[in-house]
Amino acid sequence: MRIKIRCDIMKVKTKDGTKDMRAVWMEDEKVCMIDQRFLPRELRFFTANDHYEIRDAIKKMMIRGAPSIGVTAAYGMAQAAINGVNINEASKVIKSARPTAYDLFYAVDHMVNNMNKDPVSMAEKYADSVVDKCKAIGEHGTSLISNDTKVLTHCNAGALATVDHGTALAPIRAAHDAGRNVFVFVDETRPRLQGMRLTAWELENEGISHAIIVDNAAGHFIQRGEVDMVIVGTDRIAANGDIANKIGTYEKAVVAKENGVPFYVAAPVTTFDPTTPTGMDIPIEERDHLEVLDLEGSRIHPEGSSAMNPAFDVTPAHYITGFITEKGVYSPSELENMF
Amino acid sequence: MRIKIRCDIMKVKTKDGTKDMRAVWMEDEKVCMIDQRFLPRELRFFTANDHYEIRDAIKKMMIRGAPSIGVTAAYGMAQAAINGVNINEASKVIKSARPTAYDLFYAVDHMVNNMNKDPVSMAEKYADSVVDKCKAIGEHGTSLISNDTKVLTHCNAGALATVDHGTALAPIRAAHDAGRNVFVFVDETRPRLQGMRLTAWELENEGISHAIIVDNAAGHFIQRGEVDMVIVGTDRIAANGDIANKIGTYEKAVVAKENGVPFYVAAPVTTFDPTTPTGMDIPIEERDHLEVLDLEGSRIHPEGSSAMNPAFDVTPAHYITGFITEKGVYSPSELENMF
Repeated sequence: MRIKIRCDIMKVKTKDGTKDMRAVWMEDEKVCMIDQRFLPRELRFFTANDHYEIRDAIKKMMIRGAPSIGVTAAYGMAQAAINGVNINEASKVIKSARPTAYDLFYAVDHMVNNMNKDPVSMAEKYADSVVDKCKAIGEHGTSLISNDTKVLTHCNAGALATVDHGTALAPIRAAHDAGRNVFVFVDETRPRLQGMRLTAWELENEGISHAIIVDNAAGHFIQRGEVDMVIVGTDRIAANGDIANKIGTYEKAVVAKENGVPFYVAAPVTTFDPTTPTGMDIPIEERDHLEVLDLEGSRIHPEGSSAMNPAFDVTPAHYITGFITEKGVYSPSELENMF
Repeated sequence: MRIKIRCDIMKVKTKDGTKDMRAVWMEDEKVCMIDQRFLPRELRFFTANDHYEIRDAIKKMMIRGAPSIGVTAAYGMAQAAINGVNINEASKVIKSARPTAYDLFYAVDHMVNNMNKDPVSMAEKYADSVVDKCKAIGEHGTSLISNDTKVLTHCNAGALATVDHGTALAPIRAAHDAGRNVFVFVDETRPRLQGMRLTAWELENEGISHAIIVDNAAGHFIQRGEVDMVIVGTDRIAANGDIANKIGTYEKAVVAKENGVPFYVAAPVTTFDPTTPTGMDIPIEERDHLEVLDLEGSRIHPEGSSAMNPAFDVTPAHYITGFITEKGVYSPSELENMF
């Protein structure tokens, strides 16, 4: 596949040298993306030809991360419009892909409500606005990261999750670009290992110092004073400032607070969902139990054992030091008052 | 290998039917054990012929869990005595296997200080005393488990870890045997997955209801009120009541306390090490980084990424509701005063 090169940020080492690329983009009427399921071993691409393939790409986690899901959905809606698909039908199919990330619904509704004669430009504008917001998140967040800071992050809230720059990784990228020494503790993030597979891959491509740890070890390093701050992304911010994010985020937030370590959530303000009163009102996706029970296609668990696999958890607002947004850094109550 | 059948507790389903067996035992001058690295897929055994093989069996985690390590070390010392090996030399080699579990040092010193003409009987007596203590832990602990209790446990502190019965699993086995309905949340316990591989295997063999969860999900279920109590084992209890246990234990303890869920540590009092003032004085073993970076022999991490892999963490005494010991259930301060 031809890679569309723009003046983007995410560096990807390929056999033809280092390239700048986005996590998802449009080429004519096709929606193209890095198939994240094969990283870090293989840089493979996927092309979605219709709204069903868009839904499946999101569902199967070829593309993941709330902002990237939103942009993929917007491109999918543009594609559907070009292809003459009924807009409400396309909207329904694409929205059914995953239940937790607010961006998916936001992006689809945004496309439906603003549909005009040039849906591709509209989707591109949406994608660029997501990237611009991430860039601004990086600029605001970098003020929190002085030289020799050690940051812990969970899951992947990098360029892969947000088209470019990242949310949680944007301030880290920006601090690194500014010449500051940053070290990142990368939670491996079971069950799907987005930390080990994706965040470490991005950091390695950028040349940012990091170490992968099992999720269990985050508390140990926080307790020993090795972690200066935690930055994570989020899939949805409720009206009271509670957030939903990848399973395990809640544990890290509780342990961070217990040890006086600041806990930041980086997200564009479109992740804020005023229609969801509290975190407990956010639906939590239960995913395939084999994500837990099998590793690399091998059965690990004893025959007869079952699993539970909630993909997200809720971190109440009182554990959150601040939200790093494209408009600035806000406390949970400041964010609440903005809306 | 012939399996020595006694009136033991751990049930193991084999192709020849369900058998009762121990995690480690002696046959003549040989030390035999279930090679836990192959569970739950395969029930394989290992025979150690000298003190170097004893050390390696512990080091490579064919046998693991503080009490099982202690008994294996005691058997190894008996074997060395029979084989005419210098006792101080054998003691040095066996003690070098792993640094964190106090039982290893306790058992070796116990053998050295009481060496007599029948070292095998002495080691058997030590093994039986470990099993008896575990049985008593079960009896004392079961009073904490009423009908329909949901228990969360981390790692494997079952019969495999303690020769028989278990420490953390002993009260669960006893409550189940008493006809009470118990459900166990089994943390998979990365990096080596002793929860998914070993604890779930034991529970499945016993017919105790359980579900395997990723370590990240423990906090979610605790927060949602799904967990009535946490029970874990420990590798060493410091003089002030702090404990060292499998990496991730600390996070679960902090989250349990935050949510008012009782957090119990089950261990024989020999795990108490009065010479170690606090948890921060307990040496934490750093294990091979490939335990984190590779899964099932496959490389998962990006080339160039490194890892950190502390095998244990420290849970301060103030997170611990009680210690379930063979002498009764004690608060950390009561335990401290006993010594």
